[in-house]
Amino acid sequence: MAMLILHEYAASGNCYKIRLAAALAGKRLDRREYDILKGETRTRAFLANVNANGRIPVLQAGDRFLPESNAAAFYVAEGTALIPGDPFDRADMLRWMFWEQYNHEPNIATVRFWMTLVGEDNLNDLQRAMLPGKREGGTAALKLMDEHLAGRDWFVGDAPSVADICLYAYTHVAAEGGFDLGPWAAVRAWIARVEGQEGYIPITA
Amino acid sequence: MAMLILHEYAASGNCYKIRLAAALAGKRLDRREYDILKGETRTRAFLANVNANGRIPVLQAGDRFLPESNAAAFYVAEGTALIPGDPFDRADMLRWMFWEQYNHEPNIATVRFWMTLVGEDNLNDLQRAMLPGKREGGTAALKLMDEHLAGRDWFVGDAPSVADICLYAYTHVAAEGGFDLGPWAAVRAWIARVEGQEGYIPITA
Repeated sequence: MAMLILHEYAASGNCYKIRLAAALAGKRLDRREYDILKGETRTRAFLANVNANGRIPVLQAGDRFLPESNAAAFYVAEGTALIPGDPFDRADMLRWMFWEQYNHEPNIATVRFWMTLVGEDNLNDLQRAMLPGKREGGTAALKLMDEHLAGRDWFVGDAPSVADICLYAYTHVAAEGGFDLGPWAAVRAWIARVEGQEGYIPITA
Repeated sequence: MAMLILHEYAASGNCYKIRLAAALAGKRLDRREYDILKGETRTRAFLANVNANGRIPVLQAGDRFLPESNAAAFYVAEGTALIPGDPFDRADMLRWMFWEQYNHEPNIATVRFWMTLVGEDNLNDLQRAMLPGKREGGTAALKLMDEHLAGRDWFVGDAPSVADICLYAYTHVAAEGGFDLGPWAAVRAWIARVEGQEGYIPITA
């Protein structure tokens, strides 16, 4: 595998997914930091060379560039037990990763971003109007996760996979957006299991 | 592979992705229709037996159930050339599929749903407030696709993949949501290439 460089903003849970996947997969990852609040991913050079979408994270493998956190986490986990060998289980892992991007991240991660980096007082009218729906959507996502995890240790099969990594990233810091994990005992137990894995690194690492 | 049953609402582009993937992969797919406008995916039986998330499509393989359109399209294409063998290309295919769920579907598919099934006059205040941003996000998605497709035939490598199927589903009916494909010549040429493939079926099939 070519040398891996992560173009990132370290506080982003999406960037952390890739660092955690690499740590658990035992892959080396070099890091380049950009300050999204200063527009460093919207420069002409970034748009031309790293990602025309102006977003991070982007994983660089040799001279190729891979945006989208879940795709990059999948790539760094290639060839390890973090990707199930069974075709249905592999698709089921992707199912949770697509679900994360559609039902979890736009609610839980967005509200965390608004509360911690933008500030509730600085939200514009549209963001303020969307906030109740995002709180409701985020809570519904946590409830669905809790129901799924009741009586099972991991999202897919009986071993940790990239789906656990991608879902863990914003779930374990959901309280920063005001989401209470108190009611979700199965989610809290699963968070402890993720953190107990050999090679685990925290989001601040 | 176990017998495949698609639980669906046929007019949904997300359901069509799976039908098109099966057709191009040469896999047989049985179909069960639910009327989402009559709440048929919110019944106790559907939530208990098919998908606790109350959403379609869900792909049934034997006695296992797989929600999330892009994961299901990936599964039916397993073992065919629609999934690249090269690990980076495979991850790059997933990159476009995650991008579709985050940047394309919530804009282009949602506006199409609002315009064709809800009706612009029936939008609530929040939907009305979100509409300009969704039109802008959808147009930005089409622009990014057009730039990527300039000088290349398919989204990943030099052959069609599941990424093309997943992106085609809502792009080719984007006009139903008011998105003009006129300015995007590379997108229009790519649509014609998708439709020229052996085994292609239209969304109305």
